[in-house]
Amino acid sequence: MTTESDARDELIDLAADFYDQFAGGEIPEMTLPTRTKSNIVYDEESGVWTYGDRTSTRSANSVGGARKLLKAAYTIEFLADQLEEDRSSTLRELYYLSESWDNTEAQFNSQDESNDLVEDLEIVTGVTREDFHMRPEESGATLMGPLKLREQTRRGEREIHCQEDVGEGGYQIPNNPDMIEFLDHDIEFALAVETGGMRDRLVENGFDEAYDCLVIHLKGQPARATRRITKRVHDELDVPILVFADGDPWSYRIYGSVAYGSIKSAHLSTYLATPEARYVGIQPEDIVEYDLPSDPLADSDINALESELEDPRFQTDYWEEQIELQLDIGKKSEQQSLASRGLDFVTDTYLPERLDEMGVL
Amino acid sequence: MTTESDARDELIDLAADFYDQFAGGEIPEMTLPTRTKSNIVYDEESGVWTYGDRTSTRSANSVGGARKLLKAAYTIEFLADQLEEDRSSTLRELYYLSESWDNTEAQFNSQDESNDLVEDLEIVTGVTREDFHMRPEESGATLMGPLKLREQTRRGEREIHCQEDVGEGGYQIPNNPDMIEFLDHDIEFALAVETGGMRDRLVENGFDEAYDCLVIHLKGQPARATRRITKRVHDELDVPILVFADGDPWSYRIYGSVAYGSIKSAHLSTYLATPEARYVGIQPEDIVEYDLPSDPLADSDINALESELEDPRFQTDYWEEQIELQLDIGKKSEQQSLASRGLDFVTDTYLPERLDEMGVL
Repeated sequence: MTTESDARDELIDLAADFYDQFAGGEIPEMTLPTRTKSNIVYDEESGVWTYGDRTSTRSANSVGGARKLLKAAYTIEFLADQLEEDRSSTLRELYYLSESWDNTEAQFNSQDESNDLVEDLEIVTGVTREDFHMRPEESGATLMGPLKLREQTRRGEREIHCQEDVGEGGYQIPNNPDMIEFLDHDIEFALAVETGGMRDRLVENGFDEAYDCLVIHLKGQPARATRRITKRVHDELDVPILVFADGDPWSYRIYGSVAYGSIKSAHLSTYLATPEARYVGIQPEDIVEYDLPSDPLADSDINALESELEDPRFQTDYWEEQIELQLDIGKKSEQQSLASRGLDFVTDTYLPERLDEMGVL
Repeated sequence: MTTESDARDELIDLAADFYDQFAGGEIPEMTLPTRTKSNIVYDEESGVWTYGDRTSTRSANSVGGARKLLKAAYTIEFLADQLEEDRSSTLRELYYLSESWDNTEAQFNSQDESNDLVEDLEIVTGVTREDFHMRPEESGATLMGPLKLREQTRRGEREIHCQEDVGEGGYQIPNNPDMIEFLDHDIEFALAVETGGMRDRLVENGFDEAYDCLVIHLKGQPARATRRITKRVHDELDVPILVFADGDPWSYRIYGSVAYGSIKSAHLSTYLATPEARYVGIQPEDIVEYDLPSDPLADSDINALESELEDPRFQTDYWEEQIELQLDIGKKSEQQSLASRGLDFVTDTYLPERLDEMGVL
């Protein structure tokens, strides 16, 4: 976590670079890593995918480029003020707020433009969006399990135990999970669960209590806040992270983004990704072994599986075997399809067997 | 709220009806209100839209009809057992679980089929899905405001104050909000807010504290649990409910479903709808008055507005005026576009002015 004044300093430094370039008679420019799949490389040390050596330059040597740097300068001023006042805002608010700027050339034409600029600033300064106090539009996950934490809110500190002090809905993590401090826990492992139906099944069946498991609800493709808290649980509490999702290519991508990060946020991999996270299921081999109710793969599923075979994140023996099996059987199954064996099958049989196989239990 | 044994009795009674019809030499049948827009009528007494007098009959006089009643009988048995064991399940689990039934004719062919059947059972028995212990797939809203409640969980009671005992994410309401008892409150009014970005803005700006406002996050089209808690807050705490959404036809539908219920759940209007709920904005007249950043109406927006003019729920002077104004100006604006006047405009100016106009403050 970067402090507010550090984040502010990084921004001011960037603006100062533009100033110095001007003052030195140079055309101002900003250099960024090229953000395409071919420029993602595996970082042995951290175990996640990050940008490679190829870079792109934004220069004021054209009207378009000059306008981009002007917008960057206005945005830097807004963010620096926001940090000084200890305020925060959403990406969408920033886009709208630009309409109030005095220089119409600095106003954004679309939200894609302002979103991209904030990502550029993250990359160049090495400060995360959260530390600029930019909030996401959508809220993150809920937690349920033997974890006691302290959240620093604008209204003071709150100490919350994620089983004893919450309702069945669990603890709603805040937009910036770095406002949380872990106080105490009895977690043996954390299970990051894709769907709300399965999250509720685990909680109803008392799986978190029986196995001292922290249930993290991913809510489909997980928000940054959810990936961040997952990483912090792993790194700070030293517990295994297991991802439990549907048995289809879109869910493998969810696992991929938890474990290895995404192309879009490769600059944040060391902040968001948990390379030690492992995949519990649903595996294609489970569809066969447990004869799960399934749907045939659609063309889009097949294309997605084939593209995963090319994806550096999935180039392991395990994933190649599973994905080829799935293409072979032509089927996909949802995690809730385990209910075809009864409502307790997932907690009494499936998860204990899988976790035992994986050496977690 | 129906008790578990009442819900179970209603289901058993329905199965007993089939039995009696058989025993009396009649062909078993089940009669339901016809569920189309033309069969929705305004109920003066409750102020919400409910089904009219037209009915449809499911009879075992064809193979298809007999199969439908067989599936109903199996589902009734499953639900009755679930209630007896104090368990619960999702609609998707029910669909998958039917694969374990001994009679393959009773198994569902698609989830639409099992979903529709559960709705039919709700209508015929007068018991809500929640009281059958069917959980939704997706979780409901969060609450933030001066409300202390007690939630009955499977792990005992939890007393939670929705400002003092929660983090910035707020209190996550459980799937069945009837497990909540309101203990104490200082709420002057409740604001049901469409987007996460605006919900977070209100909480960051301390609007809930400054105005003793309960902020309910609708998360787009609200889940049943969210509409239910909104109604209970209104009816039991006697506080005004205000809906704050984007200024487009899809958001007016969100308001419509909170206030008047939907065609799909017209049998639940008296349980879910809050006809006293009023619309704060964004109103088309706000787009003009505050010169808000806007997007042009797409063809689909225009069609939706025109269909709202035909919708009985929107046939009031207020809505006709607003919708016609919007068609005239050809623009729509999001609630976060208020940020074009600065981040505090919504809490310092817009909401206080609108709430004063409406007589809430």
